[in-house]
Amino acid sequence: MRVVGHRSSVDEVIAALNEQLSGGAWAPGERIPTELELVAELGVSRTVVREAVRALVHLGRLESRQGAGTFVVSTADPAPMLRQLRLAGVRDVFEVQLAYDVQAARLAAMRRDDTDIQRLRELLDLRDRADSPETFAAADVDFHAAVVAAARNPVLSEMYRYLSERLQESLETVRADAALSEGGPVTHRALLEAIVDGDPEAAAAAAHAVIKPSLTSLGGVLDERGNAQ
Amino acid sequence: MRVVGHRSSVDEVIAALNEQLSGGAWAPGERIPTELELVAELGVSRTVVREAVRALVHLGRLESRQGAGTFVVSTADPAPMLRQLRLAGVRDVFEVQLAYDVQAARLAAMRRDDTDIQRLRELLDLRDRADSPETFAAADVDFHAAVVAAARNPVLSEMYRYLSERLQESLETVRADAALSEGGPVTHRALLEAIVDGDPEAAAAAAHAVIKPSLTSLGGVLDERGNAQ
Repeated sequence: MRVVGHRSSVDEVIAALNEQLSGGAWAPGERIPTELELVAELGVSRTVVREAVRALVHLGRLESRQGAGTFVVSTADPAPMLRQLRLAGVRDVFEVQLAYDVQAARLAAMRRDDTDIQRLRELLDLRDRADSPETFAAADVDFHAAVVAAARNPVLSEMYRYLSERLQESLETVRADAALSEGGPVTHRALLEAIVDGDPEAAAAAAHAVIKPSLTSLGGVLDERGNAQ
Repeated sequence: MRVVGHRSSVDEVIAALNEQLSGGAWAPGERIPTELELVAELGVSRTVVREAVRALVHLGRLESRQGAGTFVVSTADPAPMLRQLRLAGVRDVFEVQLAYDVQAARLAAMRRDDTDIQRLRELLDLRDRADSPETFAAADVDFHAAVVAAARNPVLSEMYRYLSERLQESLETVRADAALSEGGPVTHRALLEAIVDGDPEAAAAAAHAVIKPSLTSLGGVLDERGNAQ
């Protein structure tokens, strides 16, 4: 463990703590050893321990409570997932996003209230009547976000938001925006009506029909340019 | 920006860099200012800047290249998603996991090869013939993981793995394991056959039928205990 260089020390302490967390050394909610105990155990400076702990706090695995110590939030490690997203191809991200759209439609059909229905109708009308690519794109994004909001699942919402941003970045790198075509007004209207009717299966099928053409046309673009981001 | 206390300085530098990243100050692939430039701009110590940058590297937003500087990997911020997962209820996580299962089944039906088919058959036979709850649970987990692997999407695989672990933790906190019932051998067999037949729609429907009973029985447990983790 006693290595030269601050950088590699921090990474090694993170790796050591990761190993203990993933190995179940401490359960969620349990307190981990104090800074001084970790200093003694790992043979590194207090600064190194503190920085490693803080990195794990930012990753949502540990939590520091003033005066009480550091506690385990989760033993699951999100780093491989984030690393995979960093290396991901556009198509791979798109396929996950499609899964969110379909599940959001299904849940929205079960949970939407009158306010959701009114908002979805307004946004789809805006989308149909858009007189510029910009207003069309904005109404389209808002409509899909309103479907996700009507699903009433904060985990799904946040994962959708994060992947949308990653997807947008990836699409910009392949400059595929112009080439992507979504399902037209008819499929969007079918999605809205299935949600209004409270029919989860029809909503899921309609969401799939809405997004599928984008994935197909993306396939064409990528066959020319490759899947890699 | 000049605040007292190392801890809050690091968090404020992270917040300042986050704001610039999310605001598009630098595009993916671009180099951000050097440590010394950030020290001058933000009025904090070099240690603070270094620690903040490293936290963003761990979150997959920046990348440090030896001797060349620090570069933007992604302007999308995963922290709200990770925070949301930290606070998530069991049902919310489960609904996202269901989305992955359905999409994995659909893609597996399109991409499976002979090796996948053989492995899926073996695992399902193991599951059917299991003579203890432990061997049953192991075969079941392996079967679902093999479906995900056959989907050939590394982003989906990693997100599935991470959420599975989070879900397991959440389930342990509500001690709901015993009460959850998956779809039986018939629905699992239908899932396998749809994947073998290369029928994406049937595979998606079968995956939904496999997982739905768990979500329903979880609903019963949660109505007694609440959705909160």
